[in-house]
Amino acid sequence: MKSLSQLLESVPGSVTTLMMQKGRELAAQGLDVINLAGGEPDFDTPAHIQQAAFDAIAAGDTHYPPAFGKAELLQAICAKLERENNVQALPEQLLVTPGGKWAIYVALASILNPGDEVMILDPAWVSYAPMARLNQGIPVHVPLPAADNFRVRAAQLEAYVSEKTKLLMICSPNNPTGRVLSQDELDAIADVAQQHDLYVLSDEIYEHILYDGARHRSIASMPGMAERTILINGFSKNYAMTGWRLAWLAAPLPVARLARAYQTQSVTSAASFAMAAGAVALNGPQDCVQEMVAAYARRRNFLLDALAEIPGIRSSPIEGAFYLFVQFTQTDKKSLEISQILLEDGLIATTPGIAFGEAGEGYVRLSFATGMSDLEKTVERLARIAPGL
Amino acid sequence: MKSLSQLLESVPGSVTTLMMQKGRELAAQGLDVINLAGGEPDFDTPAHIQQAAFDAIAAGDTHYPPAFGKAELLQAICAKLERENNVQALPEQLLVTPGGKWAIYVALASILNPGDEVMILDPAWVSYAPMARLNQGIPVHVPLPAADNFRVRAAQLEAYVSEKTKLLMICSPNNPTGRVLSQDELDAIADVAQQHDLYVLSDEIYEHILYDGARHRSIASMPGMAERTILINGFSKNYAMTGWRLAWLAAPLPVARLARAYQTQSVTSAASFAMAAGAVALNGPQDCVQEMVAAYARRRNFLLDALAEIPGIRSSPIEGAFYLFVQFTQTDKKSLEISQILLEDGLIATTPGIAFGEAGEGYVRLSFATGMSDLEKTVERLARIAPGL
Repeated sequence: MKSLSQLLESVPGSVTTLMMQKGRELAAQGLDVINLAGGEPDFDTPAHIQQAAFDAIAAGDTHYPPAFGKAELLQAICAKLERENNVQALPEQLLVTPGGKWAIYVALASILNPGDEVMILDPAWVSYAPMARLNQGIPVHVPLPAADNFRVRAAQLEAYVSEKTKLLMICSPNNPTGRVLSQDELDAIADVAQQHDLYVLSDEIYEHILYDGARHRSIASMPGMAERTILINGFSKNYAMTGWRLAWLAAPLPVARLARAYQTQSVTSAASFAMAAGAVALNGPQDCVQEMVAAYARRRNFLLDALAEIPGIRSSPIEGAFYLFVQFTQTDKKSLEISQILLEDGLIATTPGIAFGEAGEGYVRLSFATGMSDLEKTVERLARIAPGL
Repeated sequence: MKSLSQLLESVPGSVTTLMMQKGRELAAQGLDVINLAGGEPDFDTPAHIQQAAFDAIAAGDTHYPPAFGKAELLQAICAKLERENNVQALPEQLLVTPGGKWAIYVALASILNPGDEVMILDPAWVSYAPMARLNQGIPVHVPLPAADNFRVRAAQLEAYVSEKTKLLMICSPNNPTGRVLSQDELDAIADVAQQHDLYVLSDEIYEHILYDGARHRSIASMPGMAERTILINGFSKNYAMTGWRLAWLAAPLPVARLARAYQTQSVTSAASFAMAAGAVALNGPQDCVQEMVAAYARRRNFLLDALAEIPGIRSSPIEGAFYLFVQFTQTDKKSLEISQILLEDGLIATTPGIAFGEAGEGYVRLSFATGMSDLEKTVERLARIAPGL
């Protein structure tokens, strides 16, 4: 058994962080670097949510909140789960967390025993594997085939299940691929989870960011799945609240109890007035979300159309989130090298597909949570670089 | 080796939490319960610090901040350490955290290997031992003698050091005793730490809350101690910002690196605009702190004078923080039972001394971070109950 400090030494630095850092260095030299490497909305938090925080702070809501979440926010989350996800959860099954990453971390801490295997469907968010490892788990990377548009099939899952498998992690809408899991795929995951008695951690942080009529269904709403699903959601992506550090998990009661105990003994809680703002975000009008999604959709369509005209780039239509996961077809170069060329030659910071696992090799992730003028420049620069890569 | 979930099962629920919960239940029945069990200022956050957050949010400071802390806050902390503590730290040695508890947790996670012993000077804050245990450490409780006013002496520390000792945790001004470590005591701790090559975690969260000219000295400022001290401080107690979840640690570079890596892989960061408010708190006028401390001093003096008149209660003058740690002299009852009687018969929620370790048995902690009218009622009720306990 390794200590956390030993485990930390073994966790590689994030490629995303390195690319963004290098991008910042070039920008500091006065160069016009376009940052498509990040993972956050370029929008500021909607005004009525800001106002809710102002009101809470001015009213003296600056004291310790209940560690698991204020009653008003827990109720708002229960109502949202019922209304939007057809999931019935008791307030005691919830834990409000300082950020979605911590919600995942605390879930892993609560269920993993040393040596438990965690199935991660690659390409997957860069942080799943390190977090599993830091919680004494063993990440098992399940490569989803690019040729099949990263479709999840039961046979592929079965090939990687073992007696030690404890948890299967999914993310839909997906970072980095933009895929939304279809009902067939959800069925396959639910079948495997039930057959092998696995927990499913369902990361739904991009829930509302959907295109062309794509629909999100939470796996927790499927028969037999509520009792084995840890649902992760939050305010960062849907409400442009990354800096607020506010998210939540909904879990079977025994898991929720451990998660609550762990948070109490470590980070305690999210900020008090952030919880007040979160309740207003959930209970208030949702036009702000629709407006942001409409803007993402315009950018997505612009990019898809423009990239289709550039020789050497292939991009699939995506159904959700705010990333394009593109291939460069006229080169054998690895994704890391491509990202480096894009940064050094094109001044475009991106994330190489390899950051998301071997299954992402050959791809580069472009975030379009950035203004249209930057995207126009991106297209110009890619048109110059891609054909000669 | 136990998993975190197994460790969590072994961590007892906090007596403080239970007392506060029971107090809330009685209050919900319409009873006039006075809450002296909590550990937070009753003051709201000062207006100019609130305004700094409003300005930051309105200016769009709602995005991911640098995970380790914004440059302006890191600089403000470096300047504060130099100005107030005579401690020279580089920004890279700092980590801004979502709360002081997490700062301690991440420090423990960064330095402990399984089986490492952590010396805790009892009476000590209830959370030190569980946090050491959750990080695979073994808490070693060093009882400080009540008869000697909980004075720290080298011989007592030496009696509990072993080859496995990795860390010694101190807290000054102290929760729960209100003691401020004298230069002699700091010398004793520094000697033992250097002789046995120990880290010292110095919890200075009550730094500015001092009485009767008591002075705080950070052990990190002593010769040879910077390279082995992890200094914990924050905004919760000094600036009445408990709900903001904002604190920091300053550590030797290798520890700071691990702490930063761990935070990046788990909770990520404190809230963006809370960091802006924190920088204003440190760089701005300190009258607000002085005013709050003056109010605490009036309450402390009132309580000390009033309790001196009540047979059956003994309270020592305290030098810092906002707690009285009192003895009930005409009873053999244990502290837990006394706290229960105070709650049920007197409607005063307190924390029994046993919560802070065996060395605290026979004592009850009363927080005076509450309004004067509640303290007047407290005195009346204690005068009725204490003599007949």
